[in-house]
Amino acid sequence: MLEEFGRPLEVQEVDLAEPKAGEVLVRLVACGVCHTDLYTASGADPSGYAPTVLGHEGAGVVETVGDGVTSLAVGDHVVTLFSPQCRECIHCLSDRTNLCLAIREQQNKGYLPDGSTRLSRSGEPIRHFMGTSTFAEYTVIPEIALAKVNREAPLDRACLFACGLSTGLGAAINTAAVQAGSTCVVFGAGMVGLGAVAGCRLQGAERIVCVDLSQQRLELARGQGATDCWPADEHTVERVLEATGGFGADYTFEATGLVAVMRQAVEAARMGWGLCTVAGVAGKGETLDVIPRLLITGRRVCGSSFGGVKGRDQVPELVELYLRGEIDVDPFISHRMPLEQVNRAFELMEAQDGIRSVLQLSA
Amino acid sequence: MLEEFGRPLEVQEVDLAEPKAGEVLVRLVACGVCHTDLYTASGADPSGYAPTVLGHEGAGVVETVGDGVTSLAVGDHVVTLFSPQCRECIHCLSDRTNLCLAIREQQNKGYLPDGSTRLSRSGEPIRHFMGTSTFAEYTVIPEIALAKVNREAPLDRACLFACGLSTGLGAAINTAAVQAGSTCVVFGAGMVGLGAVAGCRLQGAERIVCVDLSQQRLELARGQGATDCWPADEHTVERVLEATGGFGADYTFEATGLVAVMRQAVEAARMGWGLCTVAGVAGKGETLDVIPRLLITGRRVCGSSFGGVKGRDQVPELVELYLRGEIDVDPFISHRMPLEQVNRAFELMEAQDGIRSVLQLSA
Repeated sequence: MLEEFGRPLEVQEVDLAEPKAGEVLVRLVACGVCHTDLYTASGADPSGYAPTVLGHEGAGVVETVGDGVTSLAVGDHVVTLFSPQCRECIHCLSDRTNLCLAIREQQNKGYLPDGSTRLSRSGEPIRHFMGTSTFAEYTVIPEIALAKVNREAPLDRACLFACGLSTGLGAAINTAAVQAGSTCVVFGAGMVGLGAVAGCRLQGAERIVCVDLSQQRLELARGQGATDCWPADEHTVERVLEATGGFGADYTFEATGLVAVMRQAVEAARMGWGLCTVAGVAGKGETLDVIPRLLITGRRVCGSSFGGVKGRDQVPELVELYLRGEIDVDPFISHRMPLEQVNRAFELMEAQDGIRSVLQLSA
Repeated sequence: MLEEFGRPLEVQEVDLAEPKAGEVLVRLVACGVCHTDLYTASGADPSGYAPTVLGHEGAGVVETVGDGVTSLAVGDHVVTLFSPQCRECIHCLSDRTNLCLAIREQQNKGYLPDGSTRLSRSGEPIRHFMGTSTFAEYTVIPEIALAKVNREAPLDRACLFACGLSTGLGAAINTAAVQAGSTCVVFGAGMVGLGAVAGCRLQGAERIVCVDLSQQRLELARGQGATDCWPADEHTVERVLEATGGFGADYTFEATGLVAVMRQAVEAARMGWGLCTVAGVAGKGETLDVIPRLLITGRRVCGSSFGGVKGRDQVPELVELYLRGEIDVDPFISHRMPLEQVNRAFELMEAQDGIRSVLQLSA
């Protein structure tokens, strides 16, 4: 429970109502701890609120289903989707975006689609977080915000597909749609950046440069398919131009959230057709300053939310890729701990110790 | 002749050598006067030089051809291409860009591909401008920088396809590749913006909003297919959002060169898939400040040089569209004058009087 911004989370017993129509009770098994949780906990997110139950990178087992739920049954293994897929709104029906509109407004305010909450304490409603609230043993989630995945996938790995890993993979596979034989540069080797490296590899990129401050993270990038690992500094753009005959990279990916790095990612993109995909989340009020001449001479800039992944359709596919050995998920999990140690996970993240802490929520 | 930055052009007799191998002598018939000419004449372009013969929106007739010229013959009608198409470089072989690399370096320095000039005065070489130098009765141009067009097209209209009109049309047709049924917003109703309006119409856009300060130019936009004409002000983004159910436009086009307007064009683009195409040229040192959240939620930003048009292939096609009555070129020509009055054309442009002055260079 986030009681107050900037304070440690508290583990408490709270009430969870039965799922209403179109909703599902999930017994959570594992949950990754992501920067967005920390961002909200810190109070830096202007749209944040407290009290709430944080967590959005969850995986678990369907415990009961509400009326009208047809796509899930008790016992199904699921990954939670902060980015749902209703399959009916104009965005879900388009192949150009994954930003489902069905429950967006209520979810942003902390409510389930009917405008109420299932969480409460002494009769007082507690708002949900990102429609998921997965730092918990159980949660109630709309059917459209759950991806049913292969039961053979260990849930402590599958949970990473709920956010960071899919975001990175999808940025390369969906948003940029990297062409085989391309040169790619990934800025940042956190969960999203490493996912982007893996995505570029899966798309058949010929050269994948990963840039980061940490030698340790760059080692992980190499394991995901990076062909070149460079220490991050102010000369990265020059270095990319030198390595590409003065042209720049076919695709660049920004996965740090720093606008100065976003700018490097734009400038390192190739004249003529280079595409810079921004996947990191910048601080409030910061802007990415683009030199218009870079656009006129053929560079393009786009962004990626949850990797352009339509969750119910594509998360199961990505999990299958993992099961087939095409995505090496284990190295991303640097720490495992029980729910009681969630604050330690935040401390590790702030210390940049490892890629992901995974909370073990139930057996 | 531009003798000195910031001074009126001078009409002089200068020497023009015969075309060398791969070059063509063109008798110029007409030439539009474009902002880029004025930009260089003013001295504001940091890569500009003097003395030189300005002009790049020319059309004429092939007078003689140099050795090895195979695609053009004496008497052919041609449109000059500051953006050439060699059909052999990696960019020409790609369908992703029109930025031919073959002669780029020499052209930028004012030389023909062999590193010399055909223009001279008392034996002193004079550099060419944009590889074209069409404020003249004759010019020598590389074969790869000439588009052969239908002889039925009046050359005083065809010349507009050498720059501004093709830039606007191509921004909509090639760069953005506007989908039928879309909503488009074009910022600026100069030659490029009006061309973009026409391009959106040709692509089957359902709604085409044009935004400009001048009621007269907005009238012209209506003639090119704009369904809505709005006076430009600081509320344009809100107005676009209101008119599109809060979403924004599928495609926006920036054709003013002002970074504040570019920013509006980004912000008016639709969540999910809105594409902002920057066609205007910003001042040196200015940047387009983009809020990264707009990218993450699906907006994309790109630029367009010469409308992504591969000149030798596509300019003749655009001229055919004009001959079939699908592009109404006449309204763009606001003034006609002989070469001697080129400085008046600059004055009219600075006074924002009309869209294009066309110089009549020979019968």
